[in-house]
Amino acid sequence: MALTAIALNATLKSSGGEPSSTDRMLDLIAAALQKEGVETETIRLADHNVKPGVTSDEGAGDAWPAIRKLILDADILILGTPIWVGQPSSVVKRALERMDAFLEEKDDQGRMVSYGKVAAVAVVGNEDGAHHVSAELYQAINDVGFTIAANAVAYWVGGAMGSTNFVDLDEVPEVVTTSVEMLARNTAHLAKLLKQNEYPGE
Amino acid sequence: MALTAIALNATLKSSGGEPSSTDRMLDLIAAALQKEGVETETIRLADHNVKPGVTSDEGAGDAWPAIRKLILDADILILGTPIWVGQPSSVVKRALERMDAFLEEKDDQGRMVSYGKVAAVAVVGNEDGAHHVSAELYQAINDVGFTIAANAVAYWVGGAMGSTNFVDLDEVPEVVTTSVEMLARNTAHLAKLLKQNEYPGE
Amino acid sequence: MALTAIALNATLKSSGGEPSSTDRMLDLIAAALQKEGVETETIRLADHNVKPGVTSDEGAGDAWPAIRKLILDADILILGTPIWVGQPSSVVKRALERMDAFLEEKDDQGRMVSYGKVAAVAVVGNEDGAHHVSAELYQAINDVGFTIAANAVAYWVGGAMGSTNFVDLDEVPEVVTTSVEMLARNTAHLAKLLKQNEYPGE
Amino acid sequence: MALTAIALNATLKSSGGEPSSTDRMLDLIAAALQKEGVETETIRLADHNVKPGVTSDEGAGDAWPAIRKLILDADILILGTPIWVGQPSSVVKRALERMDAFLEEKDDQGRMVSYGKVAAVAVVGNEDGAHHVSAELYQAINDVGFTIAANAVAYWVGGAMGSTNFVDLDEVPEVVTTSVEMLARNTAHLAKLLKQNEYPGE
Repeated sequence: MALTAIALNATLKSSGGEPSSTDRMLDLIAAALQKEGVETETIRLADHNVKPGVTSDEGAGDAWPAIRKLILDADILILGTPIWVGQPSSVVKRALERMDAFLEEKDDQGRMVSYGKVAAVAVVGNEDGAHHVSAELYQAINDVGFTIAANAVAYWVGGAMGSTNFVDLDEVPEVVTTSVEMLARNTAHLAKLLKQNEYPGE
Repeated sequence: MALTAIALNATLKSSGGEPSSTDRMLDLIAAALQKEGVETETIRLADHNVKPGVTSDEGAGDAWPAIRKLILDADILILGTPIWVGQPSSVVKRALERMDAFLEEKDDQGRMVSYGKVAAVAVVGNEDGAHHVSAELYQAINDVGFTIAANAVAYWVGGAMGSTNFVDLDEVPEVVTTSVEMLARNTAHLAKLLKQNEYPGE
Repeated sequence: MALTAIALNATLKSSGGEPSSTDRMLDLIAAALQKEGVETETIRLADHNVKPGVTSDEGAGDAWPAIRKLILDADILILGTPIWVGQPSSVVKRALERMDAFLEEKDDQGRMVSYGKVAAVAVVGNEDGAHHVSAELYQAINDVGFTIAANAVAYWVGGAMGSTNFVDLDEVPEVVTTSVEMLARNTAHLAKLLKQNEYPGE
Repeated sequence: MALTAIALNATLKSSGGEPSSTDRMLDLIAAALQKEGVETETIRLADHNVKPGVTSDEGAGDAWPAIRKLILDADILILGTPIWVGQPSSVVKRALERMDAFLEEKDDQGRMVSYGKVAAVAVVGNEDGAHHVSAELYQAINDVGFTIAANAVAYWVGGAMGSTNFVDLDEVPEVVTTSVEMLARNTAHLAKLLKQNEYPGE
């Protein structure tokens, strides 16, 4: 069974400037998902005009409806975000706010449009904040209907008050590789199961 | 296929005193799980001497090894906690610290002893804090190997600075009933799938 | 001694549409600060093009430099935000990211440009999330140099899964009025003290 | 003016075993406070029987009333905690639950027994979690009446998935020393101001 994933890169930077550490982590995850038979498409959110709001369409010029369609067409959602002041980026928060609309978008058995999809999280930062970022993202994404496989986060941060970027590391640390593979294996496994066996509904 | 659940009630109070709001919520969940064919056993953590620490056995008098066995024998783990100062109770935090040991307890394919088990969360409070509690619990429990079904939290809180207890409500609000049933349905469905189709391992 | 405050309204909505619950709370705080001799100016962030980034000036069209000047000219900063999915708005997160630049903006005694200023928080939501929002805002704003007076948050939320807006309440609950006055009294007191007695520096 | 501080070490370990990383950080802070004329007393919470609960006295054998007295006799409170699963320890959570009682312990002008006292935070861990720990501790301690000076946290963590303990570092990193001194300078300054100029009350 072929599965697909959509990865949202929530860096503050648009494409074309400095390389994104979040991209590096998402590339690792996409490669690991590939080994599990999952094709991943990555969207850099900062390249698109995602309007503020909590509906699925905020009107003329809103890039969200197209991104939302990619999310609903995929089996797996990867949220990738940098850490700023120990917290998820404003860009990923905006995407979560737009997915708040899923709470009202249910079938006649009470199942949101996101039901059966599996979410995972990628976090990078110069320093401290990854656990908290995954906590917030898990809660928000689970509230709007996604399922979370065992060990659903891959992250890298430097030591306290560090200033190195993940994108500048010569080599990817082995602990990161291990967790990326675990994330991909578990998330793909669960997405397959749920695609073949949907949640029962009311 | 018969499934079993273990529910940990992390109220600060031992049994035998005032009724526990957390117990009321856990009873609702157990009843809803029953309809899905899942038998639930509930443990009041405050009745047991769970020693502080991050290993699976903290020595003479430690109640954790027996509770840990119940967790590992069950297919589903329900963490039930009251909210204090907007946060999870110290009692549930202690249980999470003890499950930190799972990080080292892996089979030869890198799968923790908790793999394949599904966790859900029950939260009650006079007021505000439920989303944050579920965020922290999701992150901790996922880090130590549990899977999280869609909409895996059932909660009740009063309005800002309220002082009513869930246990004292004449009737359970319908929104609570709906979310309890959703939690039970989704969690049981996912636990069945994972019991029949275990995570692949390295 | 005359003091001034700047209030940032981080609702997702621009002015001119539906009334903002965050505005109602900020108006209450401004009125209470007035009684303490503090003049407050309020900025609706969604009306301005605050660009994503972590510097104090993100180039042509960036509205942040002017807002930043208002912050640095004032003695008190009030961060007002709605709750979405239990968390602070993406709009307030963007403002915090921009203040991340203060970490590098120090005098020759190691004191950030924000030192001596006092911050407080206003939170509104249909339901649950206020404690967590204040936690995140306190941490971020303290990291970038602001001081926090006792009981520095005023909030209102409805009960679990509620849908009422603060702006639609016929009357402001007394517990809210009490906490608004406490916030104003304590924050003004501390801002006066710190204006007359600046932090010593290295 | 002579000031005093009480530091609560919320490690999971009792005294007499392995050295505590939290102790090392608290010792650095006590030495820095000494230079500001502040005497610090440190209590290892795990050595005392702090009973679960949310009152100021949980009856026979409860160690909290004596610790509470030390807190109320001091001008400054330092909360020191290790990070476990990215979060504050269950031991510090228990102390915060006990301070929840301050919400009801007010003078006739509505000021809690903790008003005028300044709190700061010390965090150590093998890896990631310090920002989140300070967020949770700031919110809880501010809710129960404490004031928070600019840059009120000192922390050390290793890089992602690290396993080194702070107590085992040959040298304290300069960034840690700088933040410890900043914490001590700012906290002592603010505590002096508030001791001489108490919050006004209703």
